[in-house]
Amino acid sequence: MEILFAFKIKENEELALIDEFPSVSFYFNGSIDDKEIETADVIVTFGSNIDVAVLNRAKALKWLMVASAGVEKMPLLEIAKRNILITNVRGIHKTPMAESVLAHILALKRSIPEIYANQVTKKWRTKFHSTELNGSTALILGPGAIGAEIGRLLQAFGVKTIGCNRTGRSVESMDEIITYNELLNKLPVADFVISVLPSTPETRGLLTAKHLESMKDTAVFMNFGRGDIIDEKVLVTALRNNVIGHAVLDVFAAEPLPENHELWALPNCTVSPHISSKSGKYIERSLIVFKKNLQIWLKNDKDFINVINPESGY
Amino acid sequence: MEILFAFKIKENEELALIDEFPSVSFYFNGSIDDKEIETADVIVTFGSNIDVAVLNRAKALKWLMVASAGVEKMPLLEIAKRNILITNVRGIHKTPMAESVLAHILALKRSIPEIYANQVTKKWRTKFHSTELNGSTALILGPGAIGAEIGRLLQAFGVKTIGCNRTGRSVESMDEIITYNELLNKLPVADFVISVLPSTPETRGLLTAKHLESMKDTAVFMNFGRGDIIDEKVLVTALRNNVIGHAVLDVFAAEPLPENHELWALPNCTVSPHISSKSGKYIERSLIVFKKNLQIWLKNDKDFINVINPESGY
Repeated sequence: MEILFAFKIKENEELALIDEFPSVSFYFNGSIDDKEIETADVIVTFGSNIDVAVLNRAKALKWLMVASAGVEKMPLLEIAKRNILITNVRGIHKTPMAESVLAHILALKRSIPEIYANQVTKKWRTKFHSTELNGSTALILGPGAIGAEIGRLLQAFGVKTIGCNRTGRSVESMDEIITYNELLNKLPVADFVISVLPSTPETRGLLTAKHLESMKDTAVFMNFGRGDIIDEKVLVTALRNNVIGHAVLDVFAAEPLPENHELWALPNCTVSPHISSKSGKYIERSLIVFKKNLQIWLKNDKDFINVINPESGY
Repeated sequence: MEILFAFKIKENEELALIDEFPSVSFYFNGSIDDKEIETADVIVTFGSNIDVAVLNRAKALKWLMVASAGVEKMPLLEIAKRNILITNVRGIHKTPMAESVLAHILALKRSIPEIYANQVTKKWRTKFHSTELNGSTALILGPGAIGAEIGRLLQAFGVKTIGCNRTGRSVESMDEIITYNELLNKLPVADFVISVLPSTPETRGLLTAKHLESMKDTAVFMNFGRGDIIDEKVLVTALRNNVIGHAVLDVFAAEPLPENHELWALPNCTVSPHISSKSGKYIERSLIVFKKNLQIWLKNDKDFINVINPESGY
């Protein structure tokens, strides 16, 4: 069995894999352009380098292990057609992402931007308008593993959590669950509207000007899912007219966000360059997921974790 | 009974007090300089305007209600000599202060300063060195109501909490408790060293160069108690030499911090101008504490809450 790593891992991580899986032939620090791709049974990749041309060259490919959560830019139907198993690392993002969401929320409530800006002036100024997170209400779009972790932390701060999903099925760490149909009616109660939704045919354009208008004029809209949930022009207009209070965006319709994009310059918008899942533990945790599935593979079992359904895209 | 308010409260709060306590004569929006001080039985104050001259004029004074937590600058022994009851609002700071502490911690872990600075450049840059709070260890000096609330929130983030107090008595939300004697030995394990200690003869100068040297070179020292726990010159030297990683200071030896003070300009120091307990709910919560004690006073009971012992200073 041949496994090609299309990204770099640490030497001690390479040695641990060789040691744990002696029957496997690993090709580390490889690239999609290497000829080894033609015989690889498995490609371990961040995903964005996989296109139909690559699939055509990877004639022996049986499993794509994607060390990422979103796979919407991958040729999913071509992968399905070729009967290639595709798995991701869904779940490993929850800790760093939830910490990032809480960091941004608390920063806004506790005057962190003003404290940093004030320090530059070296002036002792105490007229800060800090408010408390305690007693707020958060509406979380897409309460999966990441959304539930955000909900758990918010609840510890005394925040009421409302989860929104397709089916209305109950989810842990949510005080209330609603469906997409009930969203417009529920938005007026939320102080924070947090999306961690993937990009799927159902979620693209889910939020419109109407949704922003339904929110409190102090509401904070946070997008940590995918940029195409809302038309950015609509969002810019709403922020410019103070229809909502603030936006914190980690994802955008086009990434990198172009230098001339209006979002960079809006005083009530925080632009985070798609880094909320960053953590020194990212690769380490990805390898844990990979090893679990590799053990299952070598045992000829089929109960893989984190399998992606190419049709739904998650 | 005459009660002088030495700071402003909202009109509806004034009306509510008049309504709830018809037997009391309130003098709102007053000042220490007003002649009404001579007949006031109670002064409600933030504390800093009370000195011996004021006490000499306030001949009828029986109770000082201080809408603050620290009373170290008040003439406590003179207050004791005159048999004046002194109470504070200890406990009402815990929610906003713990939220501020968490806001600063998460900001540092999740690259918030870099995200804000990067946005000004409008450049998409993704080389951020975010790390996770999860799995860290925090040492909390002074685990009273505020320290316990910080501990509770940190534990929700998967942080190990070590409380340090005089007696080693157990405190909620602390995984471990140590005494001041064990502090030097325990500092090497802490990623965050957080002081919420009041200023008392015992805590002044408690931390020395030796303590900073015992900390990890990545440790974050956070002072949300009182500035005199450490000599600021020693702290500046340690920060300059990267003996510790960062300091977040909400309190200082002299406040306001002078414009030419070195702490303002250190890249590994966050200066917060003593605002961590700010919250839109501060006065509202202070009045709840005040009303409880006023009810007790009017019933001629003695079981007041938040009584300060003038000798220990807390």
